Amino acid sequence: MDKKTVGLSETFKGNMTPKSFTKNPIKGTKFTIAISSAKGGVGKSTFAMNFALALKSTGSKVGILDADIYGPSLPKMMSINKKPESKDGKGLIPIEQYGVQCMSIGFLVDETTPMIWRGPMVTSAIKTFTQKVLWNDLDFIVIDMPPGTGDTQLTFAQEIKVDGVIIVSTPQEIALLDVKRGIRMFDKLKVPILGLVDNMSFFETDDGKNYNIFGEGGVEKVAINYKKEFLGKIPINIDLRVAADTGKPLVEKNPDHKVSKIIVEIAKKIKRSFP
Amino acid sequence: MDKKTVGLSETFKGNMTPKSFTKNPIKGTKFTIAISSAKGGVGKSTFAMNFALALKSTGSKVGILDADIYGPSLPKMMSINKKPESKDGKGLIPIEQYGVQCMSIGFLVDETTPMIWRGPMVTSAIKTFTQKVLWNDLDFIVIDMPPGTGDTQLTFAQEIKVDGVIIVSTPQEIALLDVKRGIRMFDKLKVPILGLVDNMSFFETDDGKNYNIFGEGGVEKVAINYKKEFLGKIPINIDLRVAADTGKPLVEKNPDHKVSKIIVEIAKKIKRSFP
Repeated sequence: MDKKTVGLSETFKGNMTPKSFTKNPIKGTKFTIAISSAKGGVGKSTFAMNFALALKSTGSKVGILDADIYGPSLPKMMSINKKPESKDGKGLIPIEQYGVQCMSIGFLVDETTPMIWRGPMVTSAIKTFTQKVLWNDLDFIVIDMPPGTGDTQLTFAQEIKVDGVIIVSTPQEIALLDVKRGIRMFDKLKVPILGLVDNMSFFETDDGKNYNIFGEGGVEKVAINYKKEFLGKIPINIDLRVAADTGKPLVEKNPDHKVSKIIVEIAKKIKRSFP
Repeated sequence: MDKKTVGLSETFKGNMTPKSFTKNPIKGTKFTIAISSAKGGVGKSTFAMNFALALKSTGSKVGILDADIYGPSLPKMMSINKKPESKDGKGLIPIEQYGVQCMSIGFLVDETTPMIWRGPMVTSAIKTFTQKVLWNDLDFIVIDMPPGTGDTQLTFAQEIKVDGVIIVSTPQEIALLDVKRGIRMFDKLKVPILGLVDNMSFFETDDGKNYNIFGEGGVEKVAINYKKEFLGKIPINIDLRVAADTGKPLVEKNPDHKVSKIIVEIAKKIKRSFP
C-alpha cells in the first residue's frame, strides 16, 4: 500500500524561526509572579486571588492583573463593579480592593459580554495592561493567566520580565498532561518555574472521610519527574468556592480557615525565594 | 478633578466591522455538533467523548474532532497512540476507535509537547482539520471545542456550518459567567444552541449523601433566563473520571452505569432534533 503516516511539519507549515525580544519589568512593580495552568477550571483564579491576598497578609504591596481576556474572574471574585479611572486619558488607574491593586478586562465591559477576539486583539489588550496601567510601587504583581499555551503566554514570556510562574493543577491524569505541556513551554521560553500546586486534591466530607475525586498524588509525581518544587496540596473545599463566588476570597474573609493557612504557607515559601 | 472612567472602545482600538462568510458543512459529514464551554475544566472533553459514543450506541455513524489545539484530550481519553495515515500526502485519514472516527492535533505530536502558537497558527490547524480530514460518511461529527471565545470559536462559527452547540458547565457562579458569555457569543455568531448541561452537578458519597460541591441549580437557572433548553445534570463521578483517565469512556466501558444512561438520554434527546 502506498500509505504514509503524517507528522506535524508536513501538516502545518508555519514560520518557526526564533526571534529575540527585550524583556522589561511591568512599570511600578518589583517582581512579577504568573499563576498558570495549561488546563482551565483547575481553580487557578481562585488560587491566584487567595495567593495575592496571602502575600499582602505577609506585609508586601501586591497587585493582581487578570490576564484572562476570554474569561475574566477577578471582578466577581474581588467584588469590583466599577470602571477604572484615568487622569490623562491614557494611563489606567488600578482599582484597589482588600488592600490589593487590581486590573481586569472585566472592568471595561459588562460581565456577560464575550470578548469574541482573535489572537492579535488579545495581544494588544495584554500590552495595554502591562504598559498602560499605573501600578503604584508594588512588591509583587500576581498575574492570573488564561489556560493554554498561546498568545497571552507568548506575549508575557517574550516581552515581560516574568520572575517566576506557579503552575496549578488538579491531580487527574488528563490534567497532568497539560501540566507537562506547561512545564515544557515555560522551560522553552526560559521563564523560571517556582513550583507546582496540587489543587482540588481531595474532598473531605462532614464526617471526616476523604475522597480522591480527581485521583491522588499526580501533581507531586510530575514535580519530582521534572525536578520542580512541589508547593503543597489544597483540598476541594466548599468554603473556598463560596468565598470566591461571593466576592471575598477565603484568605481575606477568614484567615484562620485551614485552607487559608495552607495558601499563606505557600505564599511565605514563595516570598523567601525573592530578595 | 479632571478624571474620567475609561471604557473598552477608548482603551483598545480594533477593526470591529462585520464581514460576511460562506459556511460549508465539514466534508464527509451530515451534521456538526460542537461541545463548548467558555470556561475550561468543566468536564467538556469527558462529556464530548461520552456523548459521541452515546450517539454511536443509538445507531448513528459518528466522528470526533478534537479542536483543542493547546490541550488535546482525545488521544488519552480514547487510547489512541498512533499517527494518522495519508494516501496522497494531503488528506488525513481519521483513526477509528470504539467504532468512532477520530482526529486530534495530539496524533501529530508527542503528548507532552506544548503547541506554543499564536492565533493564526491555530486557525490554520482548525482549517486543516475541517478541510483535509477524510471523514467517511458520518451522520454526526462531534467537535470538542477549546475554552474561550477566540480564534477557534470564530473560525468554526464563520466558516463551518455548525448545526448546533451544547454548552457544558459546572454550577458555580464563576463558571456561569462564562456560560452567559458563551451563550451571547453563539447567539451573536448565529450558531444554534441545542441546550445546556449541568456537569459535576453534585457528589454522592458511598453512603448516599449528596454534596453540592460547586453549588446547585445554577446552569438550569441560566438556561431558563436565556430561553435555552436544559438537557440534564451529570454528577461528579469517580468511575466517569477513571474511565476517561484510562482511555475507555464510561459509556463504552459500562453502558449500564447510571451516569452512562444519563448521557445516552441526552444523546437521544439531541438526536430527535435532527431529521
